[in-house]
Amino acid sequence: MKVRILIMPKEGLLDPQGRAVTELLTSKGYKIESAKVGKVIEMEVDDSVDIEEIAKKYLVNPLIESYKVEKE
Amino acid sequence: MKVRILIMPKEGLLDPQGRAVTELLTSKGYKIESAKVGKVIEMEVDDSVDIEEIAKKYLVNPLIESYKVEKE
Repeated sequence: MKVRILIMPKEGLLDPQGRAVTELLTSKGYKIESAKVGKVIEMEVDDSVDIEEIAKKYLVNPLIESYKVEKE
Repeated sequence: MKVRILIMPKEGLLDPQGRAVTELLTSKGYKIESAKVGKVIEMEVDDSVDIEEIAKKYLVNPLIESYKVEKE
């Protein structure tokens, strides 16, 4: 199956890229708020694979990142 | 409204992070294939904002990246 892991900086933590995007777009006149920039990992996995385990063990730093798994 | 822009390396182009993830997880015994690593930008925008325009003009490099917009 196809899965997607979205990894975002935790609420309240520094997100310089998100801040840069917010400032750039606001300065260009777009009405946007609180852009956040994170990572996305898409992969094709066997049904037996434990995605939560992969995310926690290898892909996400829980101190500074939160994540969400989406299956297609 | 809340929107999400997913920006992935184009098919066939070098994706060193995706390759690293594929190799790491495969070496750990997980049955996964073709991981791709991209960026995700989430933001709160006014309904008047043209997301496609923002993506094309400021956020995506069309030479090496493809993107997808998702609205919530």
